[in-house]
Amino acid sequence: MSGPHDGRRPRVAIVATGVIGRSWARVFTRAGCLTTAWDPNPRTLAGAVAWHKDEVHRERGNGVPDKGASDGTLVPCATLAEALNGAEYVQESGPETLDEKRAIYAELDALASPAAILASSTSTIDMTEIARGLKGASRCIVAHPVNPPHVVPAVEVLSGHDTSPAVVEATTALLRSAGQIPIVLRSFVPGFVLNRLQAALVREAVYLLERGVADADAIDAVVRDGLGLRWAILGVFGVANTNADGGVREYFERFGESYAALMTDLGSTPTFDAALVERIGQQTDAMEGGASVAAIQQWRDRMVRKVVALKRENPHP
Amino acid sequence: MSGPHDGRRPRVAIVATGVIGRSWARVFTRAGCLTTAWDPNPRTLAGAVAWHKDEVHRERGNGVPDKGASDGTLVPCATLAEALNGAEYVQESGPETLDEKRAIYAELDALASPAAILASSTSTIDMTEIARGLKGASRCIVAHPVNPPHVVPAVEVLSGHDTSPAVVEATTALLRSAGQIPIVLRSFVPGFVLNRLQAALVREAVYLLERGVADADAIDAVVRDGLGLRWAILGVFGVANTNADGGVREYFERFGESYAALMTDLGSTPTFDAALVERIGQQTDAMEGGASVAAIQQWRDRMVRKVVALKRENPHP
Repeated sequence: MSGPHDGRRPRVAIVATGVIGRSWARVFTRAGCLTTAWDPNPRTLAGAVAWHKDEVHRERGNGVPDKGASDGTLVPCATLAEALNGAEYVQESGPETLDEKRAIYAELDALASPAAILASSTSTIDMTEIARGLKGASRCIVAHPVNPPHVVPAVEVLSGHDTSPAVVEATTALLRSAGQIPIVLRSFVPGFVLNRLQAALVREAVYLLERGVADADAIDAVVRDGLGLRWAILGVFGVANTNADGGVREYFERFGESYAALMTDLGSTPTFDAALVERIGQQTDAMEGGASVAAIQQWRDRMVRKVVALKRENPHP
Repeated sequence: MSGPHDGRRPRVAIVATGVIGRSWARVFTRAGCLTTAWDPNPRTLAGAVAWHKDEVHRERGNGVPDKGASDGTLVPCATLAEALNGAEYVQESGPETLDEKRAIYAELDALASPAAILASSTSTIDMTEIARGLKGASRCIVAHPVNPPHVVPAVEVLSGHDTSPAVVEATTALLRSAGQIPIVLRSFVPGFVLNRLQAALVREAVYLLERGVADADAIDAVVRDGLGLRWAILGVFGVANTNADGGVREYFERFGESYAALMTDLGSTPTFDAALVERIGQQTDAMEGGASVAAIQQWRDRMVRKVVALKRENPHP
């Protein structure tokens, strides 16, 4: 992985080009990396190329700066071997089962250049299991993004048992140079950090909706016009640190006991049966007022980009 | 409460002027309301007046627009009766015990003009209990803000058993006209919506830190550079709705089962003992890199204001 060190942008291969894979492609083309792409389904690949072209157009319309010298072209390849040819970093976003991951990693390890890093977008599977027994297990790593990665910068980086420290370092350096914010986790836990935190909030939100304490719009307003504004700037511990003039220690000394009492009262795991999903659906429809999912996604992307830019322009003191 | 209807700004009384009360004072002076303030502790009152003056100065430096014709003056009063004289809306932010709330509400109900609304900043206590037996129980209501209310717009509004619908309507109208976003809840539950959602996220964050999966900075980065960016724009159900091209129903149909499995694996309630609080403290110190709490609070306020303004300028499609 000489790319970040000698100023030449590394060559990247995108393996599987669904919603996450195609978004990763845009991360790397925008950063000026020569980026190839392959998907077992030619229609998915063609769809990703078309999406990528539209996205480049949308970004230019919105004034999103290109970071590299690339013309933003994504190179679709008919075979996996072709896509991997010359790639120094592979971002895999295939199906989320251990069997399928093991199968694709065996292929990647056999076909990719020996020095290439093999990174997975998995949100659930331990790289120790995926890479077990592979000759190149030391170059396999998890790089789990937030949807969509070309807009939201955080990426969870997690080693398997055999991942080498140099691979962690090169992966975080490449992601950082492409404008992402890599976050190194210390150990595997189901859902990693991101999906556990999300599940914790979703569980209580669904519980409050199901119990009728408030409807989806009210619950979401508490988050988007209240809690989320602080979380987007400071994170969880950062918010606690500013909620007492004496900082985070004073905060948890004063409120730890009442927090613990409240935590014990939180809702249990809901059963996501058809009736509940439909109730959530109807309340979400009412909240969104007829806007299409695609229109809201595009608005989300524009807004998140603006907030990210705001934070870059006004760094933490 | 004629204020919002005839164009004259209503008169507001701030009762108890700690961190939350003084911030409420700024909400109303900025909106052009004649605002009086009283605190049982004269030093707390003097501190609030000094803070308010500094805050007006800071806001002018940061270009925060004054919404009303007021000069931003807060009128400190030596007695509760004086503060309540002529007030049409009272925002009470006193101690969080039922006995103290009942005592202050008995006084407020006896001293305030019969048409005045009596709103409490309580984050934990049911207004049914506070106002039980009061002659003016129908005018008592919870208006629980997010800290600090002069920066973060969400306010949870919750009736007690005897609160009249007209009081809910007038309270939400006044809060909205002062630039807040009132959110009406349907029923009492410990912690309301806001603190329950916060407790759910804090519980899992503390669990992950305690277990050593990631440190405070990494956990917070997942939130501030990932999940929180989406939550600040869309809320919880709004995010789910954009995480599948088919919307929220498709999202929970596809992921409901794996969500439920993950939710069942989430951490239990931690014991906030001295060792854990100190561990959180040290990791938060490391994350904040020596910045003072006051400096971070001011940065948070500037940033949250910018995000709120961004959302006002770019409304949901």
